[in-house]
Formats: sequence, structure tokens, C-alpha cells
Amino acid sequence: MTKPLIECVPNFSEGRSPDVIEAIVGPFRKRKGCALLDYRADEDHNRLVVSLVGAPGPIQEALLEAAKVAISHIDLERHQGGHPRIGAVDVIPFVPLQNMTMEECVELAHSFGRRYYEDTGVPVYFYEEAALRPERKRLEVIRKGQYEALKAEITKPERHPDVGEPKLHPSAGATVIGARKFLVAFNVNLGTNDVKVAKEIARTVRSSSGGLCHVKGIGLTLESRGLVQVSMNIVDFEKNGLYRVLVLIRMEARRWGVPVVETEVYGMVPAAALLDSASYYMQIAGFDANQVIELRLLQMLEENDT
Amino acid sequence: MTKPLIECVPNFSEGRSPDVIEAIVGPFRKRKGCALLDYRADEDHNRLVVSLVGAPGPIQEALLEAAKVAISHIDLERHQGGHPRIGAVDVIPFVPLQNMTMEECVELAHSFGRRYYEDTGVPVYFYEEAALRPERKRLEVIRKGQYEALKAEITKPERHPDVGEPKLHPSAGATVIGARKFLVAFNVNLGTNDVKVAKEIARTVRSSSGGLCHVKGIGLTLESRGLVQVSMNIVDFEKNGLYRVLVLIRMEARRWGVPVVETEVYGMVPAAALLDSASYYMQIAGFDANQVIELRLLQMLEENDT
Repeated sequence: MTKPLIECVPNFSEGRSPDVIEAIVGPFRKRKGCALLDYRADEDHNRLVVSLVGAPGPIQEALLEAAKVAISHIDLERHQGGHPRIGAVDVIPFVPLQNMTMEECVELAHSFGRRYYEDTGVPVYFYEEAALRPERKRLEVIRKGQYEALKAEITKPERHPDVGEPKLHPSAGATVIGARKFLVAFNVNLGTNDVKVAKEIARTVRSSSGGLCHVKGIGLTLESRGLVQVSMNIVDFEKNGLYRVLVLIRMEARRWGVPVVETEVYGMVPAAALLDSASYYMQIAGFDANQVIELRLLQMLEENDT
Repeated sequence: MTKPLIECVPNFSEGRSPDVIEAIVGPFRKRKGCALLDYRADEDHNRLVVSLVGAPGPIQEALLEAAKVAISHIDLERHQGGHPRIGAVDVIPFVPLQNMTMEECVELAHSFGRRYYEDTGVPVYFYEEAALRPERKRLEVIRKGQYEALKAEITKPERHPDVGEPKLHPSAGATVIGARKFLVAFNVNLGTNDVKVAKEIARTVRSSSGGLCHVKGIGLTLESRGLVQVSMNIVDFEKNGLYRVLVLIRMEARRWGVPVVETEVYGMVPAAALLDSASYYMQIAGFDANQVIELRLLQMLEENDT
């Protein structure tokens, strides 16, 4: 039996002070069983995005430690930045990776949210799959008007937090916690400088305008390269795999006589997303991820670790 | 820096006694840093094939232990089986997997071969990349006439071992040690019951009849399914990837009006072999294996392990 494994991508409202940023990520570096894959601070956004993978236990412990550091250093009363936010610890999504169902990840978000409030006094909203009110599935509904508006409106029943009293923490605001699927960032670059083509194809492929479910996308120009791009988030790569999205885009691009020049998989991606696409194109029957040496080794190392 | 990692596939001349088989694989199970991926005993062949992955140090220690068990239990004077063999421990190939060059694997084979002879008194022949005489690259040259013939001919200079006196161990014979690339077993099933088509296509694609280098292949019938198969070993998947072999086979199959029904990747495969094919079909630019969550985790666990 493989250990349960989750991804977690906490967002903190600090992207400018290197000392604070390092203090926040410290607990993620130190905690055994929690792997710090990446962290990126953006000065304009004044925001820190951390990418973690590990077992649910160690990740929760490290999150609580890091959250306390962030809460002690970040004051929303004085915070400014380009990215919407309501709290010092703004968003914490839990993502099931292996041996973990979405239901278990939702439970994890709920129990962590209660413990988080008890430990920090910061009220909690649940979003995406962990939402307790249907409209709160969407992060933008919870964050409407940001910290400044929520401070006044939190006393209204429709803006009450899911955990905690209906008032913000005086400096750390509130935190949104939830569960969602793994997002794959997938871009397709097209051999034309006519952005209309990318926009039209994005419209064809994305769910919001009636294309493939679980695909978000926009068309944009890559100035320096003289190309255009269909830039996408695949929200559920198990339901609509990368290969299916690409086959559809290649098909639509032919209508414009425009070639696919290249594609980009941006950031981290689960092995299954690529193995699944390889299996499609190569017609591999009955392929089992256990046949991949590295995945087998990982499983063995995880078992030894228990 | 990732640790060096090798595959090793030792073959032992015992496929019938469960007690002896378990005693031989015992050291592979117990040794930390050596992962026992698979072992298969064949009664007809009277042979045991073990698949290991790990760091060179632990694998060598476990091999010596397991070899001593095999040597103490297997008597070539009484051994019978369908598979060619010259020793109780018949063949030990080392395969570089990561952070290890072929040259380093050849050195490993040579130094292990010398130590093996010192510890066991069993003479050693080097084969494939580790061969010291060009004709010994080919295993079948070394094993010609098997144990029974070699016993008489080992005193001839052309059959002298590479390490040790020119006489066989009285019960354990001799052992062939070497270094080779990772073999990927890749089969393509074709929608016809005419085996001539599979044989013709195998001839087109394999190196021995002038096709792609590093590809071995035969055509055969899958009786129970009413299909035929091009059954291949890809001897160097970095030089001629699976996708290139498949594209060529699909192209040739069209000449016969025969469809590719499915393909099979048989047994273990390195992640790179499939990621490379996914990248080809999906035109992924600048893809880095470090973007794959599981490969990144494996690297981290290996680093912690050091």
C-alpha cells in the first residue's frame, strides 16, 4: 500500500521582504515528510505562492507553523499589492495526488480549517470542492471586494465565515481553505501572428464557451516570438487528457491553415497526465504505471519510510 | 545531485526448488539501497531471473551474498534445463539508469568481476560493453556449447576466462559479467492473421536486416487472438525512441492495408522512454523530467537517503 500523498499550494500575502518570505518557507524546508517543490514571490502582486507535496500529516503541521509566522509578520491593514487577497494566509488548497480520494481531501480541508481557527483565531472560508455553501465553490465570490470590503460586510449572514466568529482577525484577515483537483498548465503555440486565431480556438476548446469540460483557456500574443498562444488550465486531466485537448486544437487550427508550432507544459505535472497521453498516441494496451522503474522505486522508498 | 542508480538482472541456474530460489533472493530483499523489483523462476528453463534497482554499492554486496548461496546449492554437474548456461550464477549485467555513464558501468563490471573471483573462486568472462575481447561482446560466443563443452575447452587460449585460472569451478562453472543499456520490450500487434506481414515488417524495422539501429525484432502469430505481432527489443531507446519505431511500423503496415491494433510495453521501462515519446507526439518544447512531480519526489527521497 502506497502512502496517501497530497499537493498543497498555500498563498501568503508577502512578496517583497526576503526575510519574511524565508521565515515563512522555513517550516516547509525542515519538516520531514513535506517536500518543498517550489516557491515564488511576486513583488507586484506582493504575494508568495508555495508548492508542497507530501503526506497529509506533516503538511498540516508545517502549514500551521508557517501560518503563525505569516500571521505575526503580515498586517493586512497596511498590505498593498496587485493580487486580490483577504488574509495574511490567503488561500490553502489541498490536492489529492495518490491513495487519497477527493472526499478525503475535503474532510482534510474541513478538519484542518477548524484546527487552524483554534490555533490562530483567523476565521476560515471553505471553497471549491470543500465549499459548504454552493456559491462559495468560486474563490472570487469569497474574496469579493477583498480584505477592505469583507471587514465591513463579514457581519452580514451571507458573508459569515464557515469557521469562527463573524469578524476578521485584526491584522491577518481571514483564510480560504479548500480542496481541488490538480491543475495542469498547458499552452499551445500557433504559427501565426493573428491573435484572433488563438482567441477563436480558445473559445472552441474551453468549457465556458461550450468546448471541453474542465478546460479553461484564453488566446494571447507572444510578442517577442511573432506567435500566438492558446494558454490553458486543464482542471481535470483525468476527465479530459492533454492529448484530447491537443487533438482538438490541431483539428481547429487546420481550419485557419495555421500549424501547431510547439506546446508547453508549464510547471509541475503528475506523471499520469503524460503517461496517459503517451498511451493514447502509442496505442499502448493495459499499461500500468508500476511498469515505470522510477514510479516503482518511489513507491518502495515511500513504503520503507512508513 | 542525484545518486547513481543502476539496474542489475542476475540470472541463476535454479528454477525448480522454491527453497533455493528464496534463499538466493533473500540478500536482495534485505539489503538497504537495493530494490528487488521482480524475480521469475522458470521450471523448464531451470533458471531464475532477478530484476534489481539501486545504488552500485548495495547491489554489489547483495550480489556477492546471493552468489555464495547459489554456488553452495547449485551443481552444474547435475543441472539440466532448456536455457543455455555455463554457471550456477550464469550472467550478471549492470545497466546504467541515472547519474552513471556506460564507462562507469563497465568499470563497475570489471572491478566487481575481480572481487567476485577472489571471493568465490569462480572464473569470470566479460561481455557486451564490458568485453575485453571483441568477439565476447556477444554472450552466445562465451556460452558456446554451454558448461559441458566449456569444461573441456577452457584450457584453449581462445576460451580462457578474463579473470581467474583456465579451469571451471568444480560445481559452479563460470560466470559472465558485463554492462549493457536498458532493454525495452516493445510489441506491436497487427490486425491480420497473416504472419508474413509481421515478419516482413520486423525485417524492415530491425537493425540486423538494415532498418533502425538498436532494434531487434521478429514477427510471430498470436494464435488465441487471431493477430500477428512484431515483437521487439529496443536496445538503445535514447538513440531510437519507441515513437520512431512505431511511426515506421505504422507506415509500413499501410502498405499491407493492415491496422496497428495496439502496442504493448512489456515489463519495466524507464520514465524517459515514455516521456520522450509523449514529447514527440505532443510537440512539447523544453520539457524537463524535473517537472514531473513523482520524479522530483524520488530525487528528493534519494537525496535524503544519502
